[in-house]
Amino acid sequence: MEGGRSSRRWRFASPNPAVAAAGERSVRRYLLDLHGCLDERGPRPVIPLSVGDPSSCPSFRTAPEAVEAVATALRSGEFDGYPSRDTNLAARRAVAEYLSCDLPYKLSPDDVLLTSGCTQAIETVMSVFGQPGVNILLPRPGYPKHEAHAVFHKMEVRHYDLVPERGWEVDLEAVEALADENTVAIVIINPNNPCGSVYTYEHLSKIADTANKLGMLVIADEVYGHLVYGSTPFVPMGVFGETVPLLTLGAISKRWAVPGWRFGWIAICDQKCILKETKVFHSLRSFRMLTGDPATFVLGAIPHIMKNTNDEFFSKIIKLLKETAEICYSEIKEINCITCPHKPEGSFFMMVKLDISQLSDISDDIDFCRKLAKEESVMVLPGTALGMENWLRITFASEPPKLKQGLERVKSFCQRHQSQVN
Amino acid sequence: MEGGRSSRRWRFASPNPAVAAAGERSVRRYLLDLHGCLDERGPRPVIPLSVGDPSSCPSFRTAPEAVEAVATALRSGEFDGYPSRDTNLAARRAVAEYLSCDLPYKLSPDDVLLTSGCTQAIETVMSVFGQPGVNILLPRPGYPKHEAHAVFHKMEVRHYDLVPERGWEVDLEAVEALADENTVAIVIINPNNPCGSVYTYEHLSKIADTANKLGMLVIADEVYGHLVYGSTPFVPMGVFGETVPLLTLGAISKRWAVPGWRFGWIAICDQKCILKETKVFHSLRSFRMLTGDPATFVLGAIPHIMKNTNDEFFSKIIKLLKETAEICYSEIKEINCITCPHKPEGSFFMMVKLDISQLSDISDDIDFCRKLAKEESVMVLPGTALGMENWLRITFASEPPKLKQGLERVKSFCQRHQSQVN
Repeated sequence: MEGGRSSRRWRFASPNPAVAAAGERSVRRYLLDLHGCLDERGPRPVIPLSVGDPSSCPSFRTAPEAVEAVATALRSGEFDGYPSRDTNLAARRAVAEYLSCDLPYKLSPDDVLLTSGCTQAIETVMSVFGQPGVNILLPRPGYPKHEAHAVFHKMEVRHYDLVPERGWEVDLEAVEALADENTVAIVIINPNNPCGSVYTYEHLSKIADTANKLGMLVIADEVYGHLVYGSTPFVPMGVFGETVPLLTLGAISKRWAVPGWRFGWIAICDQKCILKETKVFHSLRSFRMLTGDPATFVLGAIPHIMKNTNDEFFSKIIKLLKETAEICYSEIKEINCITCPHKPEGSFFMMVKLDISQLSDISDDIDFCRKLAKEESVMVLPGTALGMENWLRITFASEPPKLKQGLERVKSFCQRHQSQVN
Repeated sequence: MEGGRSSRRWRFASPNPAVAAAGERSVRRYLLDLHGCLDERGPRPVIPLSVGDPSSCPSFRTAPEAVEAVATALRSGEFDGYPSRDTNLAARRAVAEYLSCDLPYKLSPDDVLLTSGCTQAIETVMSVFGQPGVNILLPRPGYPKHEAHAVFHKMEVRHYDLVPERGWEVDLEAVEALADENTVAIVIINPNNPCGSVYTYEHLSKIADTANKLGMLVIADEVYGHLVYGSTPFVPMGVFGETVPLLTLGAISKRWAVPGWRFGWIAICDQKCILKETKVFHSLRSFRMLTGDPATFVLGAIPHIMKNTNDEFFSKIIKLLKETAEICYSEIKEINCITCPHKPEGSFFMMVKLDISQLSDISDDIDFCRKLAKEESVMVLPGTALGMENWLRITFASEPPKLKQGLERVKSFCQRHQSQVN
């Protein structure tokens, strides 16, 4: 390089360090690493049990009426531009009505902000609350995007534990001990990613009471809303909107199996008008005006998607998830060095513990996942990515035969690496 | 309200002040205000000459082959999930090839980041460079989203002027005077929104030399790329990638008249590998891993859209813009209190000067636009929104008869409000 062109003389050479700090909290980083470990020329197809996206499995294919609604909006030529006020209002109304079905009160379209997937909903809330000096309570294990965007906006992140022995419930005593006068919010994920747990009405009620007592907002990530197949029904956190103000984040990504369509929302459940009294409401709207909308033809299709998706589609998916969760739970039981503390009842995932002492040449969960990718062409996510070393997150939102095959490969991998001492 | 529930006791009551500061720089804020002034029950249809979105005009309707490409991707069911590496690579390759047609070198797919419209491209670059202590040079008049995201990330914004008497060229002496050792980048917009100007090869070359001399990055917003219809051809800034490292921001939004499809990009033109040597390249990729992708079926359609859009579509749009720019320019000439210093040659806009002294009861550009909306149901953007008091931005990307009608209403409005002294 010419001396004069060295990076020293360029004034942009040190970008915002918060980007690198946030980038550390990225699931994609771990996935890229695992992809690098795969033997691309191996004889067996790769079985990804690492990502919550079953859309490529024929059995999980989205409802044809949803596809038709988007295709019709696209072909009409009425939704190629920025969304009109009417289009935007109709979509917000559809989401408000969809969510209100499960609430003891009605949300209005003004209580809903539309986002480009749940990711942009997370970006928005973290942008609005994030600032130096405040802290936020996040679950451990958790979803790294919450943490990444909190860190990016210079919030201090404090982790509360989910307790495996209590069905991955929130450790509320820990929450009380962690919170102080600078704690702005607690994030809860229900149905839970990565644990597959579903919180009872009673537990949610206690969370609401605790948040009220501590004066913090509840951010309820319900992107897996309605995807439950155990004995606990899905109760939206919004049911407690009288107790505490809360923001519910959601999307069509998971329930409709279309994460690539990029449509989500923030619902403001604020029955006592506490957020409206403060600047929070205004800030949320302001921020959304600066950032991009979902694709307009998806937005234009939302009223049809929400109203016309056949219940049979939802039932089929629930039945399938019940079956695959069962497969995953029983197959894992057969593997000595892996235990599942709680049978999943919701979402696409289970969180399982790895007993590293039973394995001869595996140093930790990351090493386990890398070698598993290399030797068996199976991808699972190391718990370290979610704040839990020597745990694994496995998704069972997959075709049953493929899932079984993947878990058999995990089993033979574990047997092959079993410590001889045991 | 119960005393115990007052906002004082809630710890989230003071959201991030940067959101409010950024929100001040929003065109939508002005548009919402103008919407509020419209007489909704008025006998005449509203004529919006305020926003760069002609997609609702039949004459500007996007190419049918582009619609087909998206519909086919949607119906295939292969693009409902998160984009696969192959899908993402194919779209990045298509954009790289599209841009390389006009460059003296070839961009590789790795030089391209895909974004959800140009808005997310802006968010990304401002997030990566934005931090307290640095400053960025933005044009005046400018595009408020650059400023909003710069302010949101705590950068100091310094404005350089575009000079109307010199065809809205960049005032390069001012640039040199403004820059210091903390200046990380200069943003240029070409073809220019809001001025309708198109920079010559020579002028762009001087901008590149100046940036090189000052050690700053060039951020070239080329969202109106190829939309030129005067004597100056469109030259992408990337042509000077040997002189200075630069990021080109673009989208299909304007050239294909589909801003609602939300597909854009950042192209890294860095022939001397200066950005790769620094952390900038890595930061850009890191940040994109944390934020949402464009809709996958749009992404899946991009190779087809870029390769198969008929040239006739592009020619038709250029012919139409030439006609409407001509209409706008000559109609404005007939209005005493408004002057256009430079006939537009590119983009959808012209910037015109308002001589407020010739009007009897109009206090400034904002007052002008509000009264025009109320009395004539015509919307134009006050220059104040773009940093230029007593100027107006008019878009002529509209059906010719509607445009004429709108401008006739502006004329009669001006005549009615003409100062009697003159």
